[in-house]
Amino acid sequence: MTELGIVKRQIGRAERGAVDRLAQYGVATVHEAMGRVGLMKPYMRPIYAGPQVSGTAVTVLLHPGDNWMMHVVAEQIEPGDIVVAAITAEATDGYFGDLLATSFMARGAKALVIDAGVRDVKTLTEMGFPVWSKCISAKGTVKATIGSVNIPIVCAGAAVDPGDAIVADDDGVVVVPAAIVQRTVEAAAAREANEGAKRAKLASGVLGLDLYEMREPLARAGLKYID
Amino acid sequence: MTELGIVKRQIGRAERGAVDRLAQYGVATVHEAMGRVGLMKPYMRPIYAGPQVSGTAVTVLLHPGDNWMMHVVAEQIEPGDIVVAAITAEATDGYFGDLLATSFMARGAKALVIDAGVRDVKTLTEMGFPVWSKCISAKGTVKATIGSVNIPIVCAGAAVDPGDAIVADDDGVVVVPAAIVQRTVEAAAAREANEGAKRAKLASGVLGLDLYEMREPLARAGLKYID
Amino acid sequence: MTELGIVKRQIGRAERGAVDRLAQYGVATVHEAMGRVGLMKPYMRPIYAGPQVSGTAVTVLLHPGDNWMMHVVAEQIEPGDIVVAAITAEATDGYFGDLLATSFMARGAKALVIDAGVRDVKTLTEMGFPVWSKCISAKGTVKATIGSVNIPIVCAGAAVDPGDAIVADDDGVVVVPAAIVQRTVEAAAAREANEGAKRAKLASGVLGLDLYEMREPLARAGLKYID
Amino acid sequence: MTELGIVKRQIGRAERGAVDRLAQYGVATVHEAMGRVGLMKPYMRPIYAGPQVSGTAVTVLLHPGDNWMMHVVAEQIEPGDIVVAAITAEATDGYFGDLLATSFMARGAKALVIDAGVRDVKTLTEMGFPVWSKCISAKGTVKATIGSVNIPIVCAGAAVDPGDAIVADDDGVVVVPAAIVQRTVEAAAAREANEGAKRAKLASGVLGLDLYEMREPLARAGLKYID
Amino acid sequence: MTELGIVKRQIGRAERGAVDRLAQYGVATVHEAMGRVGLMKPYMRPIYAGPQVSGTAVTVLLHPGDNWMMHVVAEQIEPGDIVVAAITAEATDGYFGDLLATSFMARGAKALVIDAGVRDVKTLTEMGFPVWSKCISAKGTVKATIGSVNIPIVCAGAAVDPGDAIVADDDGVVVVPAAIVQRTVEAAAAREANEGAKRAKLASGVLGLDLYEMREPLARAGLKYID
Amino acid sequence: MTELGIVKRQIGRAERGAVDRLAQYGVATVHEAMGRVGLMKPYMRPIYAGPQVSGTAVTVLLHPGDNWMMHVVAEQIEPGDIVVAAITAEATDGYFGDLLATSFMARGAKALVIDAGVRDVKTLTEMGFPVWSKCISAKGTVKATIGSVNIPIVCAGAAVDPGDAIVADDDGVVVVPAAIVQRTVEAAAAREANEGAKRAKLASGVLGLDLYEMREPLARAGLKYID
Repeated sequence: MTELGIVKRQIGRAERGAVDRLAQYGVATVHEAMGRVGLMKPYMRPIYAGPQVSGTAVTVLLHPGDNWMMHVVAEQIEPGDIVVAAITAEATDGYFGDLLATSFMARGAKALVIDAGVRDVKTLTEMGFPVWSKCISAKGTVKATIGSVNIPIVCAGAAVDPGDAIVADDDGVVVVPAAIVQRTVEAAAAREANEGAKRAKLASGVLGLDLYEMREPLARAGLKYID
Repeated sequence: MTELGIVKRQIGRAERGAVDRLAQYGVATVHEAMGRVGLMKPYMRPIYAGPQVSGTAVTVLLHPGDNWMMHVVAEQIEPGDIVVAAITAEATDGYFGDLLATSFMARGAKALVIDAGVRDVKTLTEMGFPVWSKCISAKGTVKATIGSVNIPIVCAGAAVDPGDAIVADDDGVVVVPAAIVQRTVEAAAAREANEGAKRAKLASGVLGLDLYEMREPLARAGLKYID
Repeated sequence: MTELGIVKRQIGRAERGAVDRLAQYGVATVHEAMGRVGLMKPYMRPIYAGPQVSGTAVTVLLHPGDNWMMHVVAEQIEPGDIVVAAITAEATDGYFGDLLATSFMARGAKALVIDAGVRDVKTLTEMGFPVWSKCISAKGTVKATIGSVNIPIVCAGAAVDPGDAIVADDDGVVVVPAAIVQRTVEAAAAREANEGAKRAKLASGVLGLDLYEMREPLARAGLKYID
Repeated sequence: MTELGIVKRQIGRAERGAVDRLAQYGVATVHEAMGRVGLMKPYMRPIYAGPQVSGTAVTVLLHPGDNWMMHVVAEQIEPGDIVVAAITAEATDGYFGDLLATSFMARGAKALVIDAGVRDVKTLTEMGFPVWSKCISAKGTVKATIGSVNIPIVCAGAAVDPGDAIVADDDGVVVVPAAIVQRTVEAAAAREANEGAKRAKLASGVLGLDLYEMREPLARAGLKYID
Repeated sequence: MTELGIVKRQIGRAERGAVDRLAQYGVATVHEAMGRVGLMKPYMRPIYAGPQVSGTAVTVLLHPGDNWMMHVVAEQIEPGDIVVAAITAEATDGYFGDLLATSFMARGAKALVIDAGVRDVKTLTEMGFPVWSKCISAKGTVKATIGSVNIPIVCAGAAVDPGDAIVADDDGVVVVPAAIVQRTVEAAAAREANEGAKRAKLASGVLGLDLYEMREPLARAGLKYID
Repeated sequence: MTELGIVKRQIGRAERGAVDRLAQYGVATVHEAMGRVGLMKPYMRPIYAGPQVSGTAVTVLLHPGDNWMMHVVAEQIEPGDIVVAAITAEATDGYFGDLLATSFMARGAKALVIDAGVRDVKTLTEMGFPVWSKCISAKGTVKATIGSVNIPIVCAGAAVDPGDAIVADDDGVVVVPAAIVQRTVEAAAAREANEGAKRAKLASGVLGLDLYEMREPLARAGLKYID
């Protein structure tokens, strides 16, 4: 339950090996493999193009204009984690910059996902620390109000439990509940295995209409061709 | 007229040679050459910077969360076309990814312009298939509801008839009605011919105030200089 | 006071040497050094990543859809200035392109900051003229209505007086009032001097919780650890 | 075709009697009767709740921050018309107030639909002149740049030809092309005749699941009930 | 877990008596009583001012542009429930109108909370069926794609489990997890009991600075008074 | 200058009599009388329709999610003041409710203008305390971080100095600098005196085209009439 003032130290993380395998499939494939759920809203964008990562979520809930809990969550990071940060109200402040990134990297964090702003993005890019955020803002924060760490949160429209798998790339961010990570890896692998043959056929000029046998259902749905 | 459930196979495309020449002038010049109309809204952005293209519009109108008609429109693509996709309501779903791009490229499409989201943007960039879209989203779609192909549509605030010329670059997307493509090419060429001399003068320090003889009309409009 | 139809020719510019030194610290550090004020809203983004500049503001207030005053402000530019442009109402039109940039560069302008749209961004990027804007739009403007130059304006939520220092980079844009530029340079330098040691400690794994001695105040604020 | 600087005096208006009948059915029913197309975007809101009107469109295209053409369109109003106003770029200025409303009412206009702002809304409400707009804003406009009257426009995402029928109520605004007004009236009437019986059954507790025989298709689509 | 294609028939509802008592305290007080969490985003607005309700959540997750599941959820409504509807992606379509409202009222629903659009708002207002929604839109939906009923959802940024208490009024919508409804009623009552005395003192001119003894902590925080 | 941690007790208020007279003219007329400047952005809306007020500004700058300074500003209110509140970053929290309104009314405040959210709007409406705000939100704030009172601020895009006149009605909010209040009252009165005759002529069917002698300048600008 969402409650302020709590740091949960022991969380059940999704199995590392399976989580690591998710990255290669990318967000779109994983989202489809899960049954087309779990995406964060599309306003979540990478601060630089290219990274494709997966990791286990440590969650943090912060107060508007206050990044105190970013220091608290740092201590809870284990190698392979992705910090997922939500704010109790809409905020665009710059909660995170190069010093915090240095600390997060020292703890083994693979990325930050935050429903607010970050700053020092040029340095973060040089450091190679990927961030998905709502915006970029130099706006400074204070350290005066507590929030919580490792409680269930809603980040950019997606529910995240501590320990869930997070996958992020240029297409966005998806959350895979810990309980279905293994199953999702398998479904993603099956899905991808299937795509190579399709791509070759489409590249040769075969139409999706024929490849997926859509002509008959389209006609049944009432589609009419005219000249 | 906008009607759902129709695929028009025969459309009158703007003359290919003239359409092809539009690309070199770019969106800003073409828009001015047309008399300062025809632009899509500025939220339409390229998924990667650089491409500058022109082509003839094949149009498609889709249902929210449903990309079935993308497969239908693929069959109507001729080499040199640009697919222009509108949704019957505001949508951010990812209607298009690398498989559809493979199919569109096989048919000779030069680009996609869509008032919604696309996904697999890293792969699309590697493939060199340019897309202008409202957003990037991994959100999957279904194939359950029909729309129409090659009917007049409104895409990102601009009316598009099938066969119109489309020009797109880093500045956005402009629609040139088929009937005025030739005239627009000429106006754009004249406009550009005119710019070289102006640029040289401005670079040498001549002010636009003098180059365009604005001082007198500004004074007449009431502009006052104070120290 | 905000009044239309005025061009002020004599303005007191912040001391050039101090203004120039601000660039190296970047927006986030300068904003903190000023006491966490002065930022423009985070929707102001560079048209290309990388530039980090500082300069003295010459201000211009324009009418929606009308860029006439851009030519008027060009004459008031001195080397080292940054033009800061506001519109009397919300606007997304493309007020500025490569010709105006040529003129601005010839006058010695270092950048443009505009609460509206710009166009020809590919050429601007090639020319190396940095712009921070609300959006990119090819929409053409007219030259029919006067505004003012070098009056106090509000740009993207920040008050700007002519002669103030402007600092802009990938994190956004900050305004430093002329009267506190010297003091802000010193505070920024002190702040940065301080960061090297912190970074090294954080990189070695020391937590911010310990480095900044936060554990006790967090406990006093009521933070509870559970397992 | 969209061209600036034109006033078309002769337009073919949809048949008055049929247009008048559309008002009683309201926007939602008319939109469904047309085949689920023709709506303006939902940001178009009435300045006061309650009015439900229909009329024939006279169209006007204006420049940002400039309401000169509102006076030009006034002369083209015939009793029973609704003025539909679009701007060549996004704008929030207050293009219309009580004086123009007085003039429009004197000409027999039934309403204004505008993809921008209006002002004097308290007086407009007292006068009983309904307006659907993007926003309310006191921002004044100038009279310096021409646009066009009675050309095809795009208003709030919908294509409008002069003479089309417009229906507006608390649910929004729908455009009915002149050619299908008669057919749409009939379809709307049929639709509404059908609703009374349905409403009675639903009120008595019959479920839509049974009334519309959805249980079987839902099961076929894969819906599963669990306890 | 979020999964499509499921209808859960048995859910544990929060205790009716406690849920009913929440309405009288209103959203702001309940939100504070819960520890300042649980609010939906402020874009959720009532379609008409005045109603102040509480009820138990039955949840429904729908596809963009598709309201089929609204008929499925109707069957799961028990008297005293509030239907909470989320969409798998951002949508503004009109998912709900007077016929569905008739059905929901016949089942005993007290309100609808939906992160999308509704229509027939004039009739809904006359019927006295309160709705909190993201927008008002006449846009019709189809019935082609299944979602789920009574699974955990995220609606307008808030996590909602079936059976949770919902409180809604002119200030917005708050979710009270079933497990803490009783405790929240008590905290809200205590909070409100406390407010009468405060209000009287403030009305008599006593300042909050003195009533809440803020002068000393403000001085300690560094606040300086100047003349 | 904008600086945090300051309360200015002595401010020069615009002359009360002149300020009071501004209310009757309303926002649109005052804005025009000032030379078409000074408006806040149109997202600032009254929480209930109808009030038309003017007063002298006492300003307050607050931290995101923190309303501590609302209690500090209360003490600086004199009868006839309007509190104008800005936040150092974008915020939607509910900074103000019925208890603070009770306190503000006891001090003689005429209204609140706030670039953030307010709550208890039903009670505020019953109390007759008018508020213009960015949004309505029940989101609670903390009291942990100081800001400033009676410093120059930017609120919703408009610069406000303490002591300036504020006019607010259903059309929005306008700021009249103290130095030009008298002149603005006179200009507004002249403007309004002028409108009665115009309204009568327009009501009788005289066109603005003729009343304002626009036909010739429109023709000169190139407007063409076609049939």
